[in-house]
Formats: sequence, C-alpha cells, structure tokens
Amino acid sequence: MKRCVVLLSGGLDSATTLYIAKHAGFKCYCLIFDYGQRHHRELDAAKRIVCEAGCKFCLLKINLPWKGSSLLDKNIPVLQPANRQTGKPANIPSTYVPGRNIIFLSFALSFAEAIKAKAIFIGAHAQDYSGYPDCRPEFYRAFSKVISTGTKAGVDKKKIEIKTPLINKTKAQIIKLGMRLGVPFELTWSCYKGGKRPCGECDSCYFRQKGFIEVGKTDPLSRKTPSRLWRDPP
Amino acid sequence: MKRCVVLLSGGLDSATTLYIAKHAGFKCYCLIFDYGQRHHRELDAAKRIVCEAGCKFCLLKINLPWKGSSLLDKNIPVLQPANRQTGKPANIPSTYVPGRNIIFLSFALSFAEAIKAKAIFIGAHAQDYSGYPDCRPEFYRAFSKVISTGTKAGVDKKKIEIKTPLINKTKAQIIKLGMRLGVPFELTWSCYKGGKRPCGECDSCYFRQKGFIEVGKTDPLSRKTPSRLWRDPP
Repeated sequence: MKRCVVLLSGGLDSATTLYIAKHAGFKCYCLIFDYGQRHHRELDAAKRIVCEAGCKFCLLKINLPWKGSSLLDKNIPVLQPANRQTGKPANIPSTYVPGRNIIFLSFALSFAEAIKAKAIFIGAHAQDYSGYPDCRPEFYRAFSKVISTGTKAGVDKKKIEIKTPLINKTKAQIIKLGMRLGVPFELTWSCYKGGKRPCGECDSCYFRQKGFIEVGKTDPLSRKTPSRLWRDPP
Repeated sequence: MKRCVVLLSGGLDSATTLYIAKHAGFKCYCLIFDYGQRHHRELDAAKRIVCEAGCKFCLLKINLPWKGSSLLDKNIPVLQPANRQTGKPANIPSTYVPGRNIIFLSFALSFAEAIKAKAIFIGAHAQDYSGYPDCRPEFYRAFSKVISTGTKAGVDKKKIEIKTPLINKTKAQIIKLGMRLGVPFELTWSCYKGGKRPCGECDSCYFRQKGFIEVGKTDPLSRKTPSRLWRDPP
C-alpha cells in the first residue's frame, strides 16, 4: 500500500484532505504541529480526527521564538482584513506566520523520505483564504523543485509529489466534498482565537460559516458559536 | 546596519561563513540546531564560535523521530564512502539526513522574515563534500524561488537572498580564506562521531585533514586527533 504524509492542522480543510488521501488508497501518516499557536485547541481536534480516520500520526513541537504573527504573539490582535462585502481577502493578514508552510513542508518531506512515502498532502487553497503567500500554487510548484534538487529521493528519481487537492476549491466546495467523504466536521476546529468556543469574528470563522451557509447546511459547531456569527459584521 | 541570519553548525565551513558575513558588514544572527545529531559536541563549538565573533544566536531544538540517517541513529554505522584515492565523494552517504538543509533554511527564512534580515548565509559547498543533494547550487536556486513565491517578503519584493559564499571552494581554499579572516579554527568541530576526540576516520575528519595538509598548515585540533588520521586508510 503506497504511503503518504498528510499535514493535519485540525481545521476542516486538512481533515477533508486526509479523507481524500485515504479514499485515493494511500496509507496516511499525519503530521501535526504544535508551534505555539494561540488556537492550541486545534491540536486536540487534529488528534481526534486522526483517531476517527484510523491513521497514524506524529505530533511535533517546534519553537519559533521570533514570533512575528498574531497567531504566536498575544500582543498582536487577530485582525479581520478580509473584505466582508465581496468575501475576498485583503492584504496579507496579521495571522500570517513567517515561513510556516515552508517549515511544515520541510518536516513532511523529511518524514516522507524516511518512510519512503510517495506523496505529501496539504489542504491549502488559494481561492478562498486570506492572502497567505504560502498557499499559492506557484509556491507549491517551487517547493516541488526543491524536492527534486535537494533530496536523495529526488536524485534517485523516486518522486515525492506535493498534492494540493483543494487548491482551486471554494470553502463551500470543500464542505460539500467533505460531506460526501464522511469527514467528521464536528471534530474540526477553525477559530484562530484561543477561546472555548469559536469567536465568530476572525477570518477563519467567517469563511467557515460562509461556506456552510452557501452549501445550505448547519455547521455542527454552530451550537457552540455565538449567534452574532450569523450576521455580517458592520 | 543590514541584518542577516547565519546557519552555524560548529564546523569550519559555517564558522568561515559567519566571518565572511561579518566582514561584509552584516549584523549576524546565528541559528544553531540541536537535531539529535550524534556529534552533539558541535553545539558547544558553535556557541563558542558565536561568542568569539561577538554575535547573537538562537539555539533551536528540533525533533526528527523518523531518523533515517547514521547521524541520528546509532544503529547505522557512519560509513566512509568517499574515494580516498581521488578524494572525490562516492554516492550519497549514510550521514545524509533527509531534508536537513531544507528544514534549516525554512527556519532561517522564518527568522529572517521576522527580523527583516536581507540575507541567509549557509556554508554549503558542492565541490568537496560527500554528495549531499542539499549542498548543490541548483537546490539553493530552487529554494530562492520558494522565498520569492511563498513569503510575505517575496510578495512585498523585499528580497531575502540565500548566500552560499563557499559553494565553489575546495576545503583548502576555505581554510586559507578562514585564516585570512581570523576564524578561530581551534574552536570548531567537524567529526561526525560523538567521541571526545575527532575519530580521524569519518568523511568529515578526512576532508578537514586533507584541506589542512594541502594548505601546509597544522589543524589546531590535530593534537586531539589519533595519529592514524594522517595516514590514508588501506
């Protein structure tokens, strides 16, 4: 059975990506990162998802002492820069963590090479999210070149492919696909803030709820979510 | 004063690279990795070098539980695959750590972006060493493309350059250059094995000694080194 590494954050995108990889016939090894994120709660979500999916996982703790992001530094507010009228992202938001996906992919690559995996799955999507440069297709193309030039697997022509099955999908399309694949959305966690319930205000909450509304379904987390979520902010 | 991040291992290549960066007028922030290497001793060397150079440093502990290298797994022997007749490296050796330089560069990039550094210095060189794919010029070119496509700095056209000042130099040329710049070679550590003295047999010891012999100088570590080092192995 061919192996793959799946980067699992605990959100609905990466959970859907895991189920896509499983349905494609891969034996999935999930990689979960504790990087000091304020929404530490997503780690529990990731572990629950991986257990539900019956896969193996590795939880890595990494330290980014230089911070440089509102996800790492509680003194920087989690802003909502996306344009709520058009639903389109604005500039690069304060939640951007310098080099985060590059670091995640590097570890995934090391893991994949060591266990002779054929692919790395990541749930990035360019269309919907808030302007993170490390979610764009051109970045993944560039990273593929790093794999082919900078690894033993690349030199030996044993390809490790980066799979971004969600890259051109909207949040609504991802939710639809996830429902078809049986993704346990009730176990996922998206909110950037570290609270007990989703804040309903950050970009991540906003896009999640927008997606569920477009699909015409109820987010299983909505019972835990403040009702102001369902109104567009002023 | 323009800033840079220097990847410092504790060996003579990275020490020379640090001094090159200093002499080029950069304010240097060194990044040192404890990744479970069996030659843990190089960490002390790196800290001493950085203090001698009067720079700041950050020591990061990272975990690669999948190992996959003789530098991480004591059950795999540190082989000497380089051809001792021609001095040229053979195949990719057992000391290759999957994705190591990619992981190091990713953290360096995150650090550089957070402190608004203009460059990342790394002491890789393709010519002399033992066939590590992540030391080749084409790998660094590919990683530069990752920076320009996958970071806020890249999107904002604030270039973070990867500098590999040793890439085309032989070990002898690096030693000569280091001597001119006042690199404290007596503080550096190269041996892959975890012993109290350099083993004199691994590739790293071999190339270091070969370099000093070519330059016609005595390695300040030679007093600590078994005399068999100075003979070519059978």
